[in-house]
Amino acid sequence: MADCYGHDLDGDAHGGNLAAARRAFPQAPEPWLDLSTGVNPHPYPVADLPLEAFARLPDGADLARLERAAALAYGARSPVMATAAPGTQAIINWLPFLFPARRVGILDFTYGEHARRWRASGAEVMITGKIEQLAEFDAAVVVNPNNPDGRLIPAGELLRLAAALRARGGVLIVDEAFIDFLPPAASLVPVLPEGAIVLRSFGKTFGLAGLRLGFAIAPEPMAERLRAALGPWPVSGAAIETGGKALADAGWIARAGARLAADGTALDALLSDAGFQAIGDTLLFRLVRHENAQRLFGALGQAGILARRFAARPDWLRFGIPADDAQRERLRSALAQAVVPPRGEALQV
Amino acid sequence: MADCYGHDLDGDAHGGNLAAARRAFPQAPEPWLDLSTGVNPHPYPVADLPLEAFARLPDGADLARLERAAALAYGARSPVMATAAPGTQAIINWLPFLFPARRVGILDFTYGEHARRWRASGAEVMITGKIEQLAEFDAAVVVNPNNPDGRLIPAGELLRLAAALRARGGVLIVDEAFIDFLPPAASLVPVLPEGAIVLRSFGKTFGLAGLRLGFAIAPEPMAERLRAALGPWPVSGAAIETGGKALADAGWIARAGARLAADGTALDALLSDAGFQAIGDTLLFRLVRHENAQRLFGALGQAGILARRFAARPDWLRFGIPADDAQRERLRSALAQAVVPPRGEALQV
Repeated sequence: MADCYGHDLDGDAHGGNLAAARRAFPQAPEPWLDLSTGVNPHPYPVADLPLEAFARLPDGADLARLERAAALAYGARSPVMATAAPGTQAIINWLPFLFPARRVGILDFTYGEHARRWRASGAEVMITGKIEQLAEFDAAVVVNPNNPDGRLIPAGELLRLAAALRARGGVLIVDEAFIDFLPPAASLVPVLPEGAIVLRSFGKTFGLAGLRLGFAIAPEPMAERLRAALGPWPVSGAAIETGGKALADAGWIARAGARLAADGTALDALLSDAGFQAIGDTLLFRLVRHENAQRLFGALGQAGILARRFAARPDWLRFGIPADDAQRERLRSALAQAVVPPRGEALQV
Repeated sequence: MADCYGHDLDGDAHGGNLAAARRAFPQAPEPWLDLSTGVNPHPYPVADLPLEAFARLPDGADLARLERAAALAYGARSPVMATAAPGTQAIINWLPFLFPARRVGILDFTYGEHARRWRASGAEVMITGKIEQLAEFDAAVVVNPNNPDGRLIPAGELLRLAAALRARGGVLIVDEAFIDFLPPAASLVPVLPEGAIVLRSFGKTFGLAGLRLGFAIAPEPMAERLRAALGPWPVSGAAIETGGKALADAGWIARAGARLAADGTALDALLSDAGFQAIGDTLLFRLVRHENAQRLFGALGQAGILARRFAARPDWLRFGIPADDAQRERLRSALAQAVVPPRGEALQV
């Protein structure tokens, strides 16, 4: 059960698992400060949802409107390319069933669910640091920008990869969960070739991860397959109502980007002061290195702050963006205490 | 596209498609009265959802709590048997991929998505009125009570069917979307055998179809497969928050049942007065027959009232339960006008 429910903290299969953190650090002060996910800490307003959004079965026309808004916001050439899902994870779950592949190549150390899902389908999965190698697989996965290190592959290189894959009947999956605040030309969506699927997250950018909304952008035959799999009522009325509004709200998105940039700069200074070395970033997280990363993770846990660590990279930590001065002060103080050798029970409080 | 988005009104693939109704009856008065779905018209209160429910990535422990509440409410022998999904439709979409079958038998004329999904997977689907025949298939589907006619198969008979199927390696799927207001012994859940999956709808009973929440109840090996397919964050924070509360609220459920029973009796009288003959029912809908059913459907449409009709049964109409006297009066008046031979443009208004 732990794999599906609990995401055992030692494995750190995912961020956002406060329940496991509470078990691991039972004396930590409440409320926890969760910096383990890459979700915008300043959510898009959802205050005035009508009761209808919860009560009525979502209408097909409203869903189509949401998908058109997504296609427009993401720069797709055609509105029918966008398929809504209850989070991009729901699409990741479906991919091995809809586009079966025997051999799957994944670029770089990255978000673990891609490898997990393809392996569960029986595929042989190889993780490689060389993008040229990906052309040799039946399916290739590129998280772009990469989670957790922010590495960005130019769209032109992905186009070449897609063409090479397609020549062999293969498919390219590009997970653009963290691309929203980059210039539009960073995305593969505006130039999407045949045989490529792009995943776009709504919840991270708009700070509404609990809403469960994400999109696949794909050429029409693939989009139809995804849409059929997800069925007639894939997302909630609240997601349709909020998503349509938020995706069209260019002013809010620009302000959110500016605010996150400032928040991130403040976080950079704080982490640097605490002796962390920057490795990579997006506007929604920072990846840093420290030789005592594991000890610092533990000290933060004792202080009720959850960072993201990686079993395969014990000297790395990833931090989501603290929302304000109070959260930064809490993080700064916990890190300052942690670098001083512990005296008595000081770290237990 | 119409198949996935629009559910063309002539096909009436599903209820709840007001957008298609508006296109078909452009002069109908607003707001429409949608009686095409079997959703409780008195929703469970959702007013005080915390912002956290939308903003935070749902926690695995909270999801597990919701699933335990569902297992308890539905009478499952073990809490791990319940798997949450964004509506039972999401489970129906997955079944042919998780439990592949070559030959699928479906009992009676029923909810069309079961046949549609299995056929799309390449299975050969037969619809039969004889439950004994179902034992000869690789997978059998029984909607119980049946939608649209309310026919109920006793749990003992389903147990025998499950045993016969299982002896051949087959699986039994029982869709109990409309069973909540029947006595607990009507459900297969408390005596769930190996090789059987039961679907339970949350949105219909609690009047929250837009929330997208439903459950599969299955023995542990099958439940694990469903849970793995649906992934770590299958439902929204709002669904977790509301679902946990509502499923444990036995008082509300009892009051809702009593209210729907009274509403239904009033609807019966109204339909009988209009010359309809009762065929079957549950507390959430009435199925009636009328030789002029198609004409009456059209007259109701002109009056902004959407009933459910069936391409295969042109003399049938299904009505959801009007919420109050005002809705009943609107329905009564539209039917009264329709049975009078139309004079001039009377029906066009």
